[in-house]
Amino acid sequence: MGGDFAPDSCINGAFLFSKKNPKAKFAFFGDKKKILPLIEKKKLINQTDSIVNTNQIITNDIKPIDALRKFKNSSMFKAIASVNSGHTNAVVSSGNTGALMVISMILMKTINGISRPAIASMFPTKKSEIVMLDLGANIECEIKNMIDFAIMGKIFSKTVLGINKPKIGLLNVGSEILKGNNQVQKAAKRLKEEKNIDFYGFVEGNDITTGLVDVVVTDGFTGNIALKTAEGVSELYTEYLKNSFKDNLYSKFAFLISLPVLKSLWNRVQPAKYNGAMFLGLNGIVVKSHGRSDANGFSSALSVAYEMCENNFNEKIILDAKKIFK
Amino acid sequence: MGGDFAPDSCINGAFLFSKKNPKAKFAFFGDKKKILPLIEKKKLINQTDSIVNTNQIITNDIKPIDALRKFKNSSMFKAIASVNSGHTNAVVSSGNTGALMVISMILMKTINGISRPAIASMFPTKKSEIVMLDLGANIECEIKNMIDFAIMGKIFSKTVLGINKPKIGLLNVGSEILKGNNQVQKAAKRLKEEKNIDFYGFVEGNDITTGLVDVVVTDGFTGNIALKTAEGVSELYTEYLKNSFKDNLYSKFAFLISLPVLKSLWNRVQPAKYNGAMFLGLNGIVVKSHGRSDANGFSSALSVAYEMCENNFNEKIILDAKKIFK
Repeated sequence: MGGDFAPDSCINGAFLFSKKNPKAKFAFFGDKKKILPLIEKKKLINQTDSIVNTNQIITNDIKPIDALRKFKNSSMFKAIASVNSGHTNAVVSSGNTGALMVISMILMKTINGISRPAIASMFPTKKSEIVMLDLGANIECEIKNMIDFAIMGKIFSKTVLGINKPKIGLLNVGSEILKGNNQVQKAAKRLKEEKNIDFYGFVEGNDITTGLVDVVVTDGFTGNIALKTAEGVSELYTEYLKNSFKDNLYSKFAFLISLPVLKSLWNRVQPAKYNGAMFLGLNGIVVKSHGRSDANGFSSALSVAYEMCENNFNEKIILDAKKIFK
Repeated sequence: MGGDFAPDSCINGAFLFSKKNPKAKFAFFGDKKKILPLIEKKKLINQTDSIVNTNQIITNDIKPIDALRKFKNSSMFKAIASVNSGHTNAVVSSGNTGALMVISMILMKTINGISRPAIASMFPTKKSEIVMLDLGANIECEIKNMIDFAIMGKIFSKTVLGINKPKIGLLNVGSEILKGNNQVQKAAKRLKEEKNIDFYGFVEGNDITTGLVDVVVTDGFTGNIALKTAEGVSELYTEYLKNSFKDNLYSKFAFLISLPVLKSLWNRVQPAKYNGAMFLGLNGIVVKSHGRSDANGFSSALSVAYEMCENNFNEKIILDAKKIFK
């Protein structure tokens, strides 16, 4: 179990998740001495399938390739291996993203036709939810990767979000055809030629949240920064909002009156609700929970993984990808 | 006059600005037939120094290099030339960013030691305001550019924001030393060696709004996407907030009670307040207003330019740069 607040955040997250999904079973990987008392405290024993004791920890400063080679007795490695062998259906981790990606990729392999997996997440917009990828799996991308992201995003949007003909946008600094760096120019040219997708064209940062397109494609460097900037702005806005209601006696009174409204708002905008980024393009379900996740966030990530399992999303994606990459 | 809502947004912005700054004088560049009636309507004649009629329009699809060569009778070219010749003190434009940048750079030249100007803007944070650059002037950057951005950002933070020893952060996908692409790795190595700045290290997207550092340095591609994503999220949050107060009869009542509080909040978070990105590194003051600016936004951009003039910011920056790049 990884993440800044593990194992508490993971077990408490599992507890929250279990209340909504009483049929789900957990396999816990980590330091058994620490995990077991928490599981007992939360009365999760009945929903616990197994507890696998591990004694190596992949910290955030460990290179992915070293994690793969030297940390075979870590919770991350064991959990991925467990999904790969079919003992469990999905892995959810708050640990080192690069390590999670490399170990998953080597053990599970990518879906036929896809050269690199991508991290994808749903985003709230003014219309319905959209999907954006890559959010950090591929810091340096080739054009072929961006095409793969577009195709995976399209399949996800269709299969998971139920969009019949998803519009694909490529994130850029301007919507005009001449804008952007060499990479987005080349990628746009190839995306236009790709007959399996409906390419809208370039979209800008502010278009992500308007719902202009159903899938936003970008390289992992830009996508990660856009995602985290969005989180930061959302947190800042919430803080400003709370502070405005503390300004004076009148605003404190208004706060009491508005509390039910604000609670329903925060339920919609809370980043924890959008926690749980999916690794798309793998022969297995891997969900990355935010390193800073609390129990609520980890519970959301578990829900993402559970929904993907329950609805055979990955099987559908693999099937659809087979048709495209035949 | 450029921008999506020009010339109305510009003249109406000038009007709003003139109420707060009765000593300011305007030089208007554009289609005199359209501008003059608006100036008369807004009773801006007394504060108008000159109206320069121009008959070419640099649209957003025109390449910067063509704008420079073939649009010498555009409002943008004439306005920059006017600042360069000393007739006016600053230029504010909502037009084509690339064209504004290239024409300014060729006419005004960069400050000694700086190879490329950068677009900088102030950002609200949980603490005080910070400065972030580049926001789109340099879509493809060399390491030398990133070092220049750090130095310009430092001088700006010191001179304009009054921070004694500004901390410089480099935007990346993780704060760990191993993270990021080749470019940020190389830039970080050079920034660490640079004795004229106080380099904090890598910062992530969510650190922009916490005020962890005083200056956030990034390439123009990433910076532009981060800036616009931030704008989009802020707009989405505002929409969610407004909708929450429309849910039912109770929330509508709560809205009435909370209106004064919400107004003070929106005054703090409105994007228009942070409109007016500065071109740093030029021998002249150039401020870029958002293409979608309304009158409020354009007025903010005018304020940024006016403050820079009134406080001799550019002279101070040039002086400080001379000491560093001697």
